Amino acid sequence: MNTAESEAASQDITHNADIPTIGVLVSGRGSNLEAIFDAIARGALHARVGIVISSNPNAPALGIAAAHEVPARVIVPKDYASRAEAGMAIIAALRAAGAVLVVLAGYKPILDGCVVGAYPMRIINIHPSLLPAFAGGMAPRPQADALAAGVKISGCTVHFVTEAVDEGPIIAQAPVPVYDDDTVERLSARILDVEHRLLPQAIERILYSTVRLEGRRVILI
Amino acid sequence: MNTAESEAASQDITHNADIPTIGVLVSGRGSNLEAIFDAIARGALHARVGIVISSNPNAPALGIAAAHEVPARVIVPKDYASRAEAGMAIIAALRAAGAVLVVLAGYKPILDGCVVGAYPMRIINIHPSLLPAFAGGMAPRPQADALAAGVKISGCTVHFVTEAVDEGPIIAQAPVPVYDDDTVERLSARILDVEHRLLPQAIERILYSTVRLEGRRVILI
Repeated sequence: MNTAESEAASQDITHNADIPTIGVLVSGRGSNLEAIFDAIARGALHARVGIVISSNPNAPALGIAAAHEVPARVIVPKDYASRAEAGMAIIAALRAAGAVLVVLAGYKPILDGCVVGAYPMRIINIHPSLLPAFAGGMAPRPQADALAAGVKISGCTVHFVTEAVDEGPIIAQAPVPVYDDDTVERLSARILDVEHRLLPQAIERILYSTVRLEGRRVILI
Repeated sequence: MNTAESEAASQDITHNADIPTIGVLVSGRGSNLEAIFDAIARGALHARVGIVISSNPNAPALGIAAAHEVPARVIVPKDYASRAEAGMAIIAALRAAGAVLVVLAGYKPILDGCVVGAYPMRIINIHPSLLPAFAGGMAPRPQADALAAGVKISGCTVHFVTEAVDEGPIIAQAPVPVYDDDTVERLSARILDVEHRLLPQAIERILYSTVRLEGRRVILI
């Protein structure tokens, strides 16, 4: 091995050993953020959370970030002159943290197009239904819609975030049974359990795969 | 036990021992009809097929009916003056056979409203998607639509037939994974395998349950 090859090899090793940094956007309790930390701790997800950004100063998710000694930022869109200005603040915070992937984990505001444009096919969201069924709305609306429609199988979906809400290409889905005696609360809890498995798995696969789009199909190689 | 009680008990026993008769409507190869016969043979479905009605004189399903010595009728809608006339012929054939439940197993024509009206909430259909997603069209259209939409979970649905196509209340659903290298043929075959389990199970449950509708939710008690 000559010097150039050796350097290239050592750079490759350095690169492979780098743990990719993700940014997580939250608005609420942060149970999916907790699931991400759990997956990292048990070695199922090879990533580090570099920053947590909350749209809500009172989100319990901020306490989860603090417990894991991860820097957190509160960026409340309505405190900014425009949604785009808030978006610029989000982009700046994500870049400063070195995030290569952005995960929306119960993030309520609609992301400004400038954020979507800054991280093309690098922002993912989890939605509590099998999209395209029951798109639109945050929990518990999709779960309530599924119950009202009388479906016997619902589930959750991890998808890329595009400017059209809940219409980005689908990365991963998992089915969840709906029972005759379900309430919105019971169904929501059952779906959330599955989200906690699906989201870290999907993050791991995206970080360590090449993403190919064939029409609307996401192929991870 | 006095005579009246004894008579009532024996009538109950007679009633329970009665094997309900179903009618099956087909248009094609009849693999779901075969699955019904298989489930009856292995004791998983307590019913007898009293009649098979085909919209297609060349349907291989007719051979399956013959192999099981079940009477078959060919009723081709376009041979009748109207869809309603064909519907009347279907109703007459089903009634003559004593069918208490009508199963559409790959039946292509849209049933006339008079048939739906004659068997309210007693006609069921199987559809190769998780309704309400990918409603409309016969195989392989829903499977092709699911693939094109990029979903990672599809499945099949047994639902009551109402006058609105593919919109009747959902009785049972089962999920089926969609793989990155799927073709319409591969996905269709995987869904069909699951249909063969789901349809006989759903028939057994409907025959031996009380059906309650709560909005669009089907509750089987």
